[in-house]
Order: sequence, then C-alpha cells, then structure tokens
Amino acid sequence: MSHEKQLEGHDLGENGDGSGNGVILGIDGGTTSTVCVCIPFFPSSKTLPKPLPILGRAVSGCSNHNSVGVTVHVSYPTETAARDTLEEVMAEALSKSGSNWSTVHAVCLGVSGVNHPTDQERILYWLREIFPSHVKLYVRNDAVAALASGTMGKLHGCVLIAGTGCISYGFAEDGREARASGAGPVLGDWGSGYGIAAKALTAVIRAHDGRGPQTMLTDKILKAIHLSSPEELIGWTYADPSWARIAALVPEVVSCAEACDQVATKILVDAVQDLALSVKAVVQRLSLCGEDGKGSFPVVMVGGVLEANRTWDIGEEVVKCIQDQFPGAHPIRPQVEPAVGAALLAWNFLMKESTENCHS
Amino acid sequence: MSHEKQLEGHDLGENGDGSGNGVILGIDGGTTSTVCVCIPFFPSSKTLPKPLPILGRAVSGCSNHNSVGVTVHVSYPTETAARDTLEEVMAEALSKSGSNWSTVHAVCLGVSGVNHPTDQERILYWLREIFPSHVKLYVRNDAVAALASGTMGKLHGCVLIAGTGCISYGFAEDGREARASGAGPVLGDWGSGYGIAAKALTAVIRAHDGRGPQTMLTDKILKAIHLSSPEELIGWTYADPSWARIAALVPEVVSCAEACDQVATKILVDAVQDLALSVKAVVQRLSLCGEDGKGSFPVVMVGGVLEANRTWDIGEEVVKCIQDQFPGAHPIRPQVEPAVGAALLAWNFLMKESTENCHS
Repeated sequence: MSHEKQLEGHDLGENGDGSGNGVILGIDGGTTSTVCVCIPFFPSSKTLPKPLPILGRAVSGCSNHNSVGVTVHVSYPTETAARDTLEEVMAEALSKSGSNWSTVHAVCLGVSGVNHPTDQERILYWLREIFPSHVKLYVRNDAVAALASGTMGKLHGCVLIAGTGCISYGFAEDGREARASGAGPVLGDWGSGYGIAAKALTAVIRAHDGRGPQTMLTDKILKAIHLSSPEELIGWTYADPSWARIAALVPEVVSCAEACDQVATKILVDAVQDLALSVKAVVQRLSLCGEDGKGSFPVVMVGGVLEANRTWDIGEEVVKCIQDQFPGAHPIRPQVEPAVGAALLAWNFLMKESTENCHS
Repeated sequence: MSHEKQLEGHDLGENGDGSGNGVILGIDGGTTSTVCVCIPFFPSSKTLPKPLPILGRAVSGCSNHNSVGVTVHVSYPTETAARDTLEEVMAEALSKSGSNWSTVHAVCLGVSGVNHPTDQERILYWLREIFPSHVKLYVRNDAVAALASGTMGKLHGCVLIAGTGCISYGFAEDGREARASGAGPVLGDWGSGYGIAAKALTAVIRAHDGRGPQTMLTDKILKAIHLSSPEELIGWTYADPSWARIAALVPEVVSCAEACDQVATKILVDAVQDLALSVKAVVQRLSLCGEDGKGSFPVVMVGGVLEANRTWDIGEEVVKCIQDQFPGAHPIRPQVEPAVGAALLAWNFLMKESTENCHS
C-alpha cells in the first residue's frame, strides 16, 4: 500500500507542539516487539527541547526477519509479516499523534538482523514503497539506535547492549564504525543473558554428573523452572529452542552470586570480562580513547543484563573493567528508549544533510 | 502391525549357520541412520564364535525421536515415523538372513534420546506391539550398545563417544551405572565435534572483531565453507541449525593444530581435557579403578572425533589424560559396529537370565 496520494492534502499548520513542521518516526525493531515513536520535526533548531515531546507511541509484535534471533537470511513470508507489522505500528503512532503519512519528514528504523548492506537495501526498498522520495529513510542496526538513545542522536562513542544477546557497536568522530560480538550463541556471545544462563545450566549438569563442583545454582534453577532433577534439564532445553527462555534465568545466577556461590560468581565475572572486552575491541579499533589512551568517550549501556540494578551489579563491574584500561570511558544510561534514539538519529542525519547543503 | 500370527508357522530347523535356534536382532538407532543386524542365537554357548556370523544387515534412516539431536520429548507424528523406520529395517535384516519374525528370540535397541525410564517404556511398548510376549526386548541408550561393541556384550567399564555429540557411560560389575555429558550443545558438551567446531568458529569471529588473536582457522574454515569474510559466518550459522553441519569442520581444526596454530591447538587441548573429564567422572562414581585407583577397566572409544587417526590424535591424547589419573584404564577400539554391540548385549542378557533361572 502506498500513501503517496494522501500527500495532496498536506497540512503543516502550526498546532502548538511543534508538529506543524511535520514529524519524524523513530522505530526500534527488536526480536520480541516493535516500538514506534513520533516526534515533531524542528527544522531550524541546533538543539532539541528537553524533555523531547513524544507526539505518539505505538507497540507491536516482532518486525525482525527471524523470530528466533539475529539473522541475515530473510525468507519472504516472514518478510511480508514484518512489513505489515511495521506499517501498522507506524500508522498507529501517527494516528495517536494526530498526524498522517503526509506529515512524515524522515523515518529511522533501528532493527536487529541488519548486518550487511544487502539487509539495509532490502528494508529500504520496502520502506520506499510506503513513502515518497522526498521522505528521508534510514535503516540501521538496532545497536546504532541504542547508541543514539544515550547520545541524543550523535553517533560518537560506543554502545554495549546485553539482553538476551549482546553486541558492542561504536562510531568515531570521522564516521568510521566498528562492532564486536553480536554473532549469536553458536559463535560465542558469552556475556549475553543467554550465554550467562547457558553456562549456569551447564554448571548444574556438571555438578550432577561429577565433572564440576556443587553449586547453589542447582536448587535455584530447578525451582525456578519447576523441575525435580538435573537430568530433566536435558529435556527442558530441547523442548523449546527460544534463547529468551534460557536468558530469563539470569536473575537466578545473580542471586546465587549475591549469596557468594563460587560457581555463579565465576560465571558473572567471566561475563563481565567478555562484555568489557567487546567494548575495548571497538574502542581500540576506532581509537576512541585518543593517542594517549585517556581521551573521553561515551559508553552507552543498554539491556536487562546491564540494567538489573542488583547488589551484584554486572553493568557496574563492566564499567570498572573498561575504565581500568580506558579512564576516559564515560558510562551513560539512556533516559529515553531506543525508538526515541532512532528518531533522534533521523533528526541528526537531517540536520547534517541540511548543513552540508548550506555549505555546498 | 503385529506379526504374532506368523508364529504359527515356527521353523527353527538347523540350517548350518546357527540360525536353527532362532536369531537375535541388534539395532543401533542413531540421529542420522538406523542399522539392524541379525545374528544367530546360540542357546548353550558360554562364548560366542569369532568372528561372529552376521546373518543379515540393513540400514535405514533416522529412528530417533528427534531429527536434530538427543531429546526426551517425543512428538507423536515423529514417533510414528520412527516406528515405521524401525519395523522396516528389522524386516529387511530378517529377510536378508533368510529368517522371519517368528524366529526372533530377542531384540536389543540402542537408541539415542533414551535418557529416562519413561523413554524406555514408551519404546518397549511399541516393540511389544510387534513381538509376542516370549521375545525378550531390551531398549537402552545408544552409548550402552557402543560399550557392548567393545566388550563383546559385557556391561563393564566405560564408553566414550565423541562424534557430533559426546557422552561417557559406564557400568560397574555390580550393575550400577553412571553417565556424564551427553546433554547437548546448550548444556556444554564442549568435547564433542559440534563443541570443537563451534569454538573454532567463535575464534574466527573474535579474531575478526579484535577480541582474540589471529588464527589460521579463519582462512581454513572460510575456504572449507566457501565464504569470503568472517562476517558472513553469522548468516551461515543461522541458515541451518544442524549440529552435524558445524561438527563437520573438526578436520579443519585438526589441520590447523597440526600446523601449530596456537588457537586451534588450545581448542583441541581443551576438548581432550573435557572428554577425559567425562570418563574420569564416571570412573570415580563407579569406582571402576578399585580401591587403590590402579585397577584395570576397559574404556571403549567410539566416534569420528576419537577415530580420526591424524597426527594430532585427539583419541590418543584423551587416553593419555585418563591414564595419568587411572593407569589401569585399558583403551578398546571396537572391531564391530554398535548394532552388533546391541545384539551381543541381548545375547548377554539372555545368558544371564537363563543362568539365573537355572539357579533359582
């Protein structure tokens, strides 16, 4: 469905909230849900108002190509469903903000599963079927939108996401970018929620069959998933291949570490090292820390593993570990959600392009 | 389908190959194929003739409940297919040996996915629908048949299987049994072919994104699977979730270790430790090594990872590692296949039962 014909009835009249100049849509397309926010477009501002007015917000199901996890392989039936989800969530956000398709200046979609230019092009192609050519469209990895949510849209520094999966993604001032991790469980994302919980389940099996030390994790995890013996874990893991189901056991691991269980503590310490290493690899490749290694740069921290706010604080430990090597690392816990980050990113891209046009 | 009515035409006449006393069926039900062998039943022998006469042999597809891997969850459509496969492969082996259903004295099925008594009971139930009540039926984990293939049917000692997956399984003289590993990739079977290859793929990603040292594995693996960059590995791993496809990369890891690549060498050394630890855990729980720790016991070595026969010999290293702790460990490379092991197991069970009946 194309919305081009609605453009004939353009209405950019001022209505007091800034939407008179049109709107920007920011979308966070994750593996479990899709969030779309609609913010006003401020064409002449150098800085945005704080707090940023959110004109409308809508939530829908998964708009990712693959319901299990990050993938670059798009199967067409799934893509159609993802397109429909995306179109619906944008329509709802626009409707809630009292706007319509014709007022949209720019759209930025941060989506997991965008690892290659070909992924980007494919999604841009079907966004272009919805929006006419003057609407600016940006498609990036969801990590980029997460970074923008902590830097108010500026692409500089590094973001670390650790939820079910994990990824580190960074940008230098000159536009160079780099990533580390984010390759999924087969390829060893051990600092992710899935990685932490899978190691804990392994520790329970090892304690049971005599390969490893006894651990509180056994009772804690079996109780959490209503099993009576470690042997039943084999069936439990095969019954449902969802990574999120396994990652949901992270709080049990944290509880055991807080109770000084050595096995659980080692799992968390290793995860902290792995997560910090992902950030350090990006920082080094982009020289974010300057020539003397002491330069200041933001590290945006996102995701359930980093935001748990527990006594054994994984996020806090990761920050310490990064700062041991790079004292200029400045942690940021975003005050806005990734969908707003995507919208801010779009605004920043628009501003940059208009500045470039002025100078040319 | 029941074959009970065929029993009316019993024919146990001697025909020179020992089958005059009826036959035993041994079945190895693996994740990729099912093998059935038919051997003669020697009712009064204390020892079996060498070489053991194989009257018939048939191969069919997977008879496992789950085509991906070991599982305790049986879905009924899959179970029906597994039953059909099993019945077909038995019929073919009988036909090739010039026998029929009525001559069968005993059946032993060694099958992956049997982890609980409930699994065993379910399979026994549908074997019982095929065979009348006087036919002895035995259903065991495939590791038990593999052990029997190295010990001529005697359940004593430990077997280590390392193919796509890995498991260690042992029996004490008094019948106590124990297992270690065999829990699948989520639960950390790191010495398996899948485990070794997944670690190698992870090392390639880590070298690429700056988290780990450069390694020969990058060129070797990318060439083997026809990819041009490490980034493409993310898509490659998600494109097909089969563990066997990943485990097939083990020879590349061995080649790199043989060329002294440190990353590949560490992966293999760790796998050796993991595999040896699985055996040691079983040996210790069953006290197979006697009170002084020096008692003799067999360790049956089975599977592609242990039988590769390369310069960097994983199986050989595992044996050394076990013997460091238990000098009485006596490695056995089976001369017969696991299906024959299952048949030998059935013969052993029959002999034991007849001895017990004589004494009671």
